[in-house]
Amino acid sequence: MENKTIITGHKSPDTDSICCALTYAYIKTQLGEDVIAGRAGEISKETQFVLDTFKMEPPTFFAKVDAGQKLILVDHNEKSQAVDGLDDADLKEIIDHHRLGGLSTAAPLYMRVEPVGCCSTIIYKLAKENGVSLPPAYAGLLFSAISSDTLYFKSPTTTDADRKAAGELAEIAGIKDPKGYALDMLQHGSAINSSTPKEIVHGDMKEFDFPQGKVTVAQVNVMDGEKAKAKWADLKKALQDMVDGGESDTSLLMVTDIMTEVTDLLWAGKNQDVLAKAFGTPEADGHFHLPGVLSRKKQIVPPLTNAFKG
Amino acid sequence: MENKTIITGHKSPDTDSICCALTYAYIKTQLGEDVIAGRAGEISKETQFVLDTFKMEPPTFFAKVDAGQKLILVDHNEKSQAVDGLDDADLKEIIDHHRLGGLSTAAPLYMRVEPVGCCSTIIYKLAKENGVSLPPAYAGLLFSAISSDTLYFKSPTTTDADRKAAGELAEIAGIKDPKGYALDMLQHGSAINSSTPKEIVHGDMKEFDFPQGKVTVAQVNVMDGEKAKAKWADLKKALQDMVDGGESDTSLLMVTDIMTEVTDLLWAGKNQDVLAKAFGTPEADGHFHLPGVLSRKKQIVPPLTNAFKG
Repeated sequence: MENKTIITGHKSPDTDSICCALTYAYIKTQLGEDVIAGRAGEISKETQFVLDTFKMEPPTFFAKVDAGQKLILVDHNEKSQAVDGLDDADLKEIIDHHRLGGLSTAAPLYMRVEPVGCCSTIIYKLAKENGVSLPPAYAGLLFSAISSDTLYFKSPTTTDADRKAAGELAEIAGIKDPKGYALDMLQHGSAINSSTPKEIVHGDMKEFDFPQGKVTVAQVNVMDGEKAKAKWADLKKALQDMVDGGESDTSLLMVTDIMTEVTDLLWAGKNQDVLAKAFGTPEADGHFHLPGVLSRKKQIVPPLTNAFKG
Repeated sequence: MENKTIITGHKSPDTDSICCALTYAYIKTQLGEDVIAGRAGEISKETQFVLDTFKMEPPTFFAKVDAGQKLILVDHNEKSQAVDGLDDADLKEIIDHHRLGGLSTAAPLYMRVEPVGCCSTIIYKLAKENGVSLPPAYAGLLFSAISSDTLYFKSPTTTDADRKAAGELAEIAGIKDPKGYALDMLQHGSAINSSTPKEIVHGDMKEFDFPQGKVTVAQVNVMDGEKAKAKWADLKKALQDMVDGGESDTSLLMVTDIMTEVTDLLWAGKNQDVLAKAFGTPEADGHFHLPGVLSRKKQIVPPLTNAFKG
């Protein structure tokens, strides 16, 4: 692996991380670069549905990268979310659409961050800028990732650039019923019925290091929020287990009803005062009821970051 | 100023920071955005020569930006180098060509970093990508900045992208003798004969925050390194004054002979062991003699950062 550059998304990879890694590796290969698509965690059920649909193999799993390994990060730019070994790797590029997470490097690199709903939208732009035509299967991956990250354009993170890219990609991929396919994918992605509480609070989880402690934010999308309430007690226990086990100081889980566009934010651990500052008065049972909130990146992380800043 | 977005380079601005701010503001204005070119410090003698040549006004000076001020950073991405008030500003974009310096933000932004010799090369690319034609005077600014940052292509930071951009820009600007103009500009930029030692160690200076203390690295280009030696004692005293005055823990000054391509690294303060780890055995008087070293960014900062990492 010494000479190949590894292209990888974040730990607990979502569909965007996997599809960006596969497609950017295809683009770089077409441009004559020696790269390999990687992943820093397990494939989710939603992503597996996407890979099966377009008959693609998952990227190679890397638990850790060696010192000096040439590396390209897609869909993240924070050390706590990156594959182990980042500090001593030779970081060549970052392609992302998230807030800046405080990474520093010894040397200049190529970095492209845009405030769009999905990193795959940027990957598609890079394909066009570099004159690389995407085969239908790769276009299908990017379309799936955009549909996933934007909850089929319902998330407030969605931009015109995402909508435009998704339209063109669905065309290239030959997807006859884009909306039907996207909702089917999101249904497959919903862990609420098929996963254990422990899996749910770890499945699509991001870590953030604040001076007041480590905070994890997981998210599960549901199609029927009322039905999901029956699971809350078990989910809260799984969040408490994370804190008790030392995995985090404050564990959050967004239970997001895509249909009604409401998030119920369940949590365990310390920093209750900071959470109240970020999200207002909690309900009687302590959770936060947040109508209109769909996006972790745009609606949860910014108020949380500001509240932790004091 | 509430509605206008300020575009500014780093403190102690060099020619690149000033020319990027002016030209990117022109591009954004052509695209219908409400922006103003700013600067976070005094105009250098070299930059004044450039502004005079192309009959341009300097950007507006900002000692500090207000909370919530919309801001675009060019030619830097580190908080310690940025205009005061960055933490509470609304950071919209970063266009840069330096290492990542650990900045974090609450929300996603547009960020374009490329490992090229000069930020003006990226600004020129952005003009082309956005279909904005540059008037000759702006092309002249960008050509000057590239010639300055790359020491007219002698610096090892120089890339093919810089050479290509400079060639096209000299053409647009109608500069008849690009090399003659560039050397004339660099001559005007050399503070060694026209500035006091105190001005020299502060003139083109970057700050870096390491766990072991604050490190400043200034650079002065000279055309005749032997003649410059007569000034070393005074320069070392000025560096020591910075340490004694609490401005930094370790003060470095690169005295770079462009003609012979040699840097003599003068310094004062603590961390001698770290410097020796980064730059090898010092000369009898304690300074480091570094043949072939021209670039702070590529040849001084990376070994320094690695040595401070331990």
